[in-house]
Amino acid sequence: MKKVLIDCDPGIDDALALALAAGSADFLDVVGVTTVGGNVDLSLTTANALALREFLGMGDVPVTPGSAGALLRQTVRAAHVHGAGGLGDVVLPAPERGASPGHAVDHIIETLKADPGEITLVAVGPLTNLALAVRREPRVVEWARDLVIMGGSYTRGNHNPAAEFNMLADPEAAAVVFEAGWTVTMLGLDVTLSAVVTADVLERMRGLGRLSELLVPAARFYGVVTAEGGPAIHDACAVAYVLDPSLFTCVPAVVDVETMGQFTRGMTVTDFKLRDRRPNALVATSVDVERFWDVVLGAYGKLAARLG
Amino acid sequence: MKKVLIDCDPGIDDALALALAAGSADFLDVVGVTTVGGNVDLSLTTANALALREFLGMGDVPVTPGSAGALLRQTVRAAHVHGAGGLGDVVLPAPERGASPGHAVDHIIETLKADPGEITLVAVGPLTNLALAVRREPRVVEWARDLVIMGGSYTRGNHNPAAEFNMLADPEAAAVVFEAGWTVTMLGLDVTLSAVVTADVLERMRGLGRLSELLVPAARFYGVVTAEGGPAIHDACAVAYVLDPSLFTCVPAVVDVETMGQFTRGMTVTDFKLRDRRPNALVATSVDVERFWDVVLGAYGKLAARLG
Amino acid sequence: MKKVLIDCDPGIDDALALALAAGSADFLDVVGVTTVGGNVDLSLTTANALALREFLGMGDVPVTPGSAGALLRQTVRAAHVHGAGGLGDVVLPAPERGASPGHAVDHIIETLKADPGEITLVAVGPLTNLALAVRREPRVVEWARDLVIMGGSYTRGNHNPAAEFNMLADPEAAAVVFEAGWTVTMLGLDVTLSAVVTADVLERMRGLGRLSELLVPAARFYGVVTAEGGPAIHDACAVAYVLDPSLFTCVPAVVDVETMGQFTRGMTVTDFKLRDRRPNALVATSVDVERFWDVVLGAYGKLAARLG
Amino acid sequence: MKKVLIDCDPGIDDALALALAAGSADFLDVVGVTTVGGNVDLSLTTANALALREFLGMGDVPVTPGSAGALLRQTVRAAHVHGAGGLGDVVLPAPERGASPGHAVDHIIETLKADPGEITLVAVGPLTNLALAVRREPRVVEWARDLVIMGGSYTRGNHNPAAEFNMLADPEAAAVVFEAGWTVTMLGLDVTLSAVVTADVLERMRGLGRLSELLVPAARFYGVVTAEGGPAIHDACAVAYVLDPSLFTCVPAVVDVETMGQFTRGMTVTDFKLRDRRPNALVATSVDVERFWDVVLGAYGKLAARLG
Repeated sequence: MKKVLIDCDPGIDDALALALAAGSADFLDVVGVTTVGGNVDLSLTTANALALREFLGMGDVPVTPGSAGALLRQTVRAAHVHGAGGLGDVVLPAPERGASPGHAVDHIIETLKADPGEITLVAVGPLTNLALAVRREPRVVEWARDLVIMGGSYTRGNHNPAAEFNMLADPEAAAVVFEAGWTVTMLGLDVTLSAVVTADVLERMRGLGRLSELLVPAARFYGVVTAEGGPAIHDACAVAYVLDPSLFTCVPAVVDVETMGQFTRGMTVTDFKLRDRRPNALVATSVDVERFWDVVLGAYGKLAARLG
Repeated sequence: MKKVLIDCDPGIDDALALALAAGSADFLDVVGVTTVGGNVDLSLTTANALALREFLGMGDVPVTPGSAGALLRQTVRAAHVHGAGGLGDVVLPAPERGASPGHAVDHIIETLKADPGEITLVAVGPLTNLALAVRREPRVVEWARDLVIMGGSYTRGNHNPAAEFNMLADPEAAAVVFEAGWTVTMLGLDVTLSAVVTADVLERMRGLGRLSELLVPAARFYGVVTAEGGPAIHDACAVAYVLDPSLFTCVPAVVDVETMGQFTRGMTVTDFKLRDRRPNALVATSVDVERFWDVVLGAYGKLAARLG
Repeated sequence: MKKVLIDCDPGIDDALALALAAGSADFLDVVGVTTVGGNVDLSLTTANALALREFLGMGDVPVTPGSAGALLRQTVRAAHVHGAGGLGDVVLPAPERGASPGHAVDHIIETLKADPGEITLVAVGPLTNLALAVRREPRVVEWARDLVIMGGSYTRGNHNPAAEFNMLADPEAAAVVFEAGWTVTMLGLDVTLSAVVTADVLERMRGLGRLSELLVPAARFYGVVTAEGGPAIHDACAVAYVLDPSLFTCVPAVVDVETMGQFTRGMTVTDFKLRDRRPNALVATSVDVERFWDVVLGAYGKLAARLG
Repeated sequence: MKKVLIDCDPGIDDALALALAAGSADFLDVVGVTTVGGNVDLSLTTANALALREFLGMGDVPVTPGSAGALLRQTVRAAHVHGAGGLGDVVLPAPERGASPGHAVDHIIETLKADPGEITLVAVGPLTNLALAVRREPRVVEWARDLVIMGGSYTRGNHNPAAEFNMLADPEAAAVVFEAGWTVTMLGLDVTLSAVVTADVLERMRGLGRLSELLVPAARFYGVVTAEGGPAIHDACAVAYVLDPSLFTCVPAVVDVETMGQFTRGMTVTDFKLRDRRPNALVATSVDVERFWDVVLGAYGKLAARLG
């Protein structure tokens, strides 16, 4: 069992990532879900996380809201990709329970402190909460077992030609996190754009009972608004990496986050040559797509059996 | 009685500011002292704050350490101005009591939350703690009665031609604080460089018994290393403002903190013309030097009488 | 006799600077006037220079148009200060002769090359032409006897809190010129704002016959639109410096032009401390206002006598 | 016959590009070669261009030296890639004739002016000369028939992760050129890294008599120092495009050159989505490698036959 704390901004692909975690209960122990403003506003990402916790049968894992905006400046939103509410046209039952008291930043610090060396941080939204945690308590860097993020790219961005959305939404936070002293495992667009819901995958999702009521419209909505040949479920890649790192090829690199450019803010400038610098990242460069879907659909199948 | 929470990085002029607060016990209730890395490292600023609390007879006011480094990047230090230990060649008795548990950022949030509308924040170091507090809990902006800082300049800097030291030490934090939605009262170099310890002032300090053992060598050390015709006790201006705002002329302005320039990072770009923007600062443009020293030396006198 | 080549963007104060040069024919030999887009568009600055050449009786000094826009990016204009046509509500007779063929950049290069060590460049607009000349022919730096500019400030700007108009209009050109290897004599706002047309000065201008038809409405128009207690005839300071350097106190400094800031582009960051760098500028820090007006009004008087 | 003016910084691949032009005398009329500091210093790039003119039998095409350094700031060199002299360990006979008088910038302007609409500019070095020509005489944009450059990338750089060498060597010049109003045909690393001298190509080069004395050691030297599976003869792609545009797939795009980033200066940020902006570039996205080598080796064969 690996313990994971998931920082997210649901978000369609966040929902599919949480479903993957929920379906992997034999391997993953989700010790907390924290939310951040990102794809949509914090109030919506938190509401979605709460609804997903119950819909996905995640029990009493605490859901703790965090930062509404970016570390330094105005941020960007992606409601054009995720729908006004953040989950496309998926409608989930209203949740019965509310969020945990306290703040995501404190929750992250305290959870890691209580169980040092055991918890893998999985961050699939803007890195605001993590950056604040690092600055408020630098020892989280030692306490975390690992940090796996969905974000960035070593080639081209998606929100603009240079930057991936999560990094662009808070470039300064990303810079803080990459420079904090740990090794960031980065699942960027370079691999996540391969994790596309094909017609075949969609067909297999349709047979998943109640769970399909989330998966199918989510993938469909996403597919309409994203250009590249089918919906890429970016965030699920980060959870899949924790489940089975061998799905991805990862290469050590130095990643610098551009915070100053006129056209390149939020770009994860990735140097594989190192040039005498210690690598601060392990960057995914390829994914075994077939095995990826086996893992993901396998977990979805188990979850579906549980949910009915 | 005004309640103040003082965020500082002692630092010679921080020491003189704390002495001013300690000597104004009839008017000021110091509800907390928080420390930040700045003039020297956090471990030293905290040790100095602890020693000063006891030397100045500040009772059980909590001293809580905060941020060691800047929000985003490597910071600068000013040991060349304040001496390696931060207090020049002043030697204070080792303190008997240690720092409060917890972190300055939490202490600031909790203290303001417990007494909304009552506490004036006085910040005389880099603004890292305040920026983290604002981002961790945006309501501190409403809860604070007022925010008075020593920092910045609307003309020229001191650490370099464009930037004042406190702002340069954490430009991003300064940007966060100035953009947070409150009105920052800014006592910058434009006025603090007038608050110079003249020969006459030094003479009056000499007669202050035990307190003179802090004041005189502090002023002397400072005077040797600062260029401009005598030591300017910058930080004391912020406390003096809280004691008697009428000592200063203040003008509403829009202050933007430059974070991107090649030669101007940390500059407080101050626009008195407003140009349709709401002022976010009240900027001190002149000080009544004579009355300033009356207030300061009056307080020092009271404190000296108490300390023996 | 000092030979001067004047690069300008008339502009009201440029007109008063040209009048000062024209009235100083005993001391100055104006070997060329080149124009640049600045206060208003190049077509207007050139038309104004041509009209002024004839109105001021400057004979056959060549007027050569140069750069319409800035070196790198969109520039700014100051028609709100100089009127739509560039000379406020002054109306000059239409000139009979046109501009010289060729381009200001070539004219500058060739003129300096033909008379190395003899010609003082006086630049009172954006520095685009000079930067292009330096890059096209780096030896102009050696060939020029001296370079005197009106521009910049070591305290505050005028177009915005950080930048003076001429520098803001082409920060990259200014950076090129300051870094070219010569010593730039910089008459900035720090002194030019002292060279104000007072009621007394205006009264003396009124008695200058035909010339007063230029001077008086120019000063009046300018006075209405500039905030600071009367019209400052900035550009005339550069010509006055060439006539009599002793009017100004000048201090060696390192000037870096900010090209990257978010709020500070075009700022002339002026370091008087040098810090081991070779000074690249001689920066005017004070002006003897009384003698300045004696020199200026003396020249205007001579010119008026000539013009009738 | 297409008329071309080639602006270059030889440089090994520049040499191979000039050889391609020289071997295409049936289709291309090289009306001028201008040089710029780039791979190595201007004195060397000019000396190499002069030696190549004679070695390649290019007759009396004028070789005119231009800019030694970048438009705004210190530039970078690539002697580690091209050898200290710029041509690896190729040794060419010393040329008998020298460079043309005058400056590349003037030569470009005058040549285009004399034959408007007829001449294609081919730029395979830093864009300093072109930027200065555009600023000195904006009509070159209309006079040029076309502008084809080797430079940039829409994915990753070579000199660093973000920037291709020619763009990094003068980002401001590149920005000027891309924003000048014409459509820049950009052959970037995205295609040029496919134009690799394979063992088979090298074998065919060996049979080319005297010409092989340039081609073979050039390709060999280059191959040793470049990482990616063989030497890519970047600059030859630009000439090949002029010879036969159908070798490349080109897509309209908006290219912004980053001049401000901390890690991304010189990056050609390429947006294929346009987003309501007029495309300023035609960006090559693929090359027919087989036909490319047919064209190149065919031309080399003709040249070899001529040179003996």
